[in-house]
Amino acid sequence: MTGRRPEPPEARAVQARDRRVLARLISMVENGDPRARPIQKALYPHTGHARIVGITGPLGVGKSSLVNALLGVLRARGVRVGIIGVDPTSPFSGGSVLGDRIRIDRAGGDEGVFFRSMASRGHTGGIAATTREVARLLDAFGMDIVLVETVGSGQVDVEIRRIASTSVVVLVPHLGDGVQSLKAGLFEIADVFTINKADLPGADGAARYLSEMTALGAGPDGWTPPVVQCSTVEGRGIEDLWKAVEAHEAFLDSGPGRARGEEARARAEIVDRVTGRIGLRLDGLLEENRELRELLGQVLDRSLDPGTASDRIYAALRHRL
Amino acid sequence: MTGRRPEPPEARAVQARDRRVLARLISMVENGDPRARPIQKALYPHTGHARIVGITGPLGVGKSSLVNALLGVLRARGVRVGIIGVDPTSPFSGGSVLGDRIRIDRAGGDEGVFFRSMASRGHTGGIAATTREVARLLDAFGMDIVLVETVGSGQVDVEIRRIASTSVVVLVPHLGDGVQSLKAGLFEIADVFTINKADLPGADGAARYLSEMTALGAGPDGWTPPVVQCSTVEGRGIEDLWKAVEAHEAFLDSGPGRARGEEARARAEIVDRVTGRIGLRLDGLLEENRELRELLGQVLDRSLDPGTASDRIYAALRHRL
Repeated sequence: MTGRRPEPPEARAVQARDRRVLARLISMVENGDPRARPIQKALYPHTGHARIVGITGPLGVGKSSLVNALLGVLRARGVRVGIIGVDPTSPFSGGSVLGDRIRIDRAGGDEGVFFRSMASRGHTGGIAATTREVARLLDAFGMDIVLVETVGSGQVDVEIRRIASTSVVVLVPHLGDGVQSLKAGLFEIADVFTINKADLPGADGAARYLSEMTALGAGPDGWTPPVVQCSTVEGRGIEDLWKAVEAHEAFLDSGPGRARGEEARARAEIVDRVTGRIGLRLDGLLEENRELRELLGQVLDRSLDPGTASDRIYAALRHRL
Repeated sequence: MTGRRPEPPEARAVQARDRRVLARLISMVENGDPRARPIQKALYPHTGHARIVGITGPLGVGKSSLVNALLGVLRARGVRVGIIGVDPTSPFSGGSVLGDRIRIDRAGGDEGVFFRSMASRGHTGGIAATTREVARLLDAFGMDIVLVETVGSGQVDVEIRRIASTSVVVLVPHLGDGVQSLKAGLFEIADVFTINKADLPGADGAARYLSEMTALGAGPDGWTPPVVQCSTVEGRGIEDLWKAVEAHEAFLDSGPGRARGEEARARAEIVDRVTGRIGLRLDGLLEENRELRELLGQVLDRSLDPGTASDRIYAALRHRL
C-alpha cells in the first residue's frame, strides 16, 4: 500500500547531519510553513531513537547552568545532545534575550550538540506541538538525547511532560518554606527531583522533605522519584543526576512504562491535531454557515445558553465519531 | 418553542443575592459538578449586565493592592463589584495561601462585594472556561463590574483576554529596561496600561516610553491604550485608572467594538466547548474503536506519521462539519 516515495532532499540532508538544513527546517516548523510537512513525514520513520528529557523548574534555580553541566557529562561520554530552550511564556518577560545569550555559549563548534531557543508564544497549535516536532527533527538528525529546558510556568511545563519520557524538576534549598505549600501538581510532573545550588544552606532539609513527600505515594506506575542534590558551582552531583535519569529510563524499559507512555503521547498528539483542525473549521463555519450563525445569534441575544448551543453542534457531529 | 420551565430554586436564590448559594454554586462550577449545569442555564438569560475587566501583570507589581484601591473607588460610587483572583498557574508557587489571605481582607461584611480566589490548575476545560462561568454567576448575582485579577503568566492572561471586555496591564517603573524587550504580545493584551508604584523613580520615563509604543500603532479597532500612572501607597491615580477603563468601555459602545467583541468571545467559547468534547470522545475511541486503534498502532510503529493519521481522522469527520 505505502509504496516508497523518493525522500525530499532536505530529509536526506538532516539524516546526513547537515546543520544548516536542520536549522532552516526548525525555523519552518516554528513558523508553521507547510513546506516542512513532507520533510517531517519522510523523517518520521527515522525517529524514535532519541530520549526526550524535560528539565523544568522556577526562574532562578539555575536550570541553564545545570543543562550546561549535564551537557559536559554527556559529551564526555560521546552522547550526542540536542537542546531545546523554551523561553518564558509571559509576554512580560524578555526571555529571548537570555535565550540568545545561551545559544552562543552552547553552540561553540561541537558537532555533537545542537541548541535551539524558542519563544513560547505565537505557535499555531501551541508551544508543546512545536517542541515535539523540533525534538523529532533532532532525533532524526541523530541526537541520542534531547534536553527540553522550560521555565516553570505551569501550563507549558505540564504540556512538555507530554513530550518527554523523563522529567526532571529543579528546585533550590531556599525554596524551603515554599516547598511546604507546593501543589500536588509538582509530583505529577517529576520523575526526578534535583536540589540545585546544594552548596547553599538548607539543601539537606529540602532534600529530606522532598524525599518524605515522594515516599508517601509512589506514582501509579510504581516509580518513586529520587531526589538528587547537585551544585553546578562546585561541579558536584551532576553525574548522579544523570544516573537518576538513566535509572528512570531503565525503569520504563523494564516494564510496561515505555509502551504506555508512548501510546499516551501519541494519543494526545492525535487528539490535539484533530481537535485543532476541527476548531479552526468550526470557527469558520460559525461565520459562514446559516444554521450555525443562527445558533450563535441566539447565544448573543441570550435566548440560548452557550452550553446548549455547543451540545447541539456536538450532537450533530457525534455519530461520525 | 422554548416553553418556560420553572427556574431551579438555586437560580432564583442567586438572583435574590443569596451569597451562600452563590458560593456553593461557584464551588460546583469549579469542581465540574454537572448539577450546576441546569442552574447556569436558567441564569444565562439574566446575564450580560456586568462588565468584565481583567487586571493583569507580572508578580510583584502590586495588582492586589490596586484591585483593593479600585474596589474603594467603585464602592464609593455604589457600584457592585465581583472579584475573581486567579492564582498563579505554576505548580511551583504556593499561590493559594496568598489567595486565602486576600479573600479575608476583601470579603469584610460589604454586601456589594464578592471575592473569590481560584487556583488556576485542575479545571476541566481550563481555567479560562471556569473563570468565564464564575464571572457569569457574579453577573447574574447582580454585580455591575467583575474584576478578574490574573498573575502575568502568559497563556492564562491571553485567555482571560477572551473573557474581559477591558484588560488593564499593570507594570511598575523599575521594569524600565525590561520594558524595552517586552514582546508585542503585551500590546495585544492591553486596552489600558497602568504604571503602578508611580511614587518610585523612573515612572515618568516608563510612562513616556509606553505611550510612544502605543502611539506607534493604534489597534485594529482604532483604540490607543492610554497609560495611567498611579500609586496605591499615595492613593493617587486610582480614579484616573478607572476613568480610563470607562473610556474604553464607552469606546466599545460608541462603535462596532462591543458587538464584535461579544461575538468573538461567544465563538471562541463554542469552539472550545465543542472541541473539548470531541477531544474527550476521540481519546476514548482511540482506545475502543478498532480502526482508530489500528491507525494509532501504525503511528506507534512509525509506519504512519501522526500528521497523516490525524488528517485521515479529520477527513472522516470533516464533511459533517
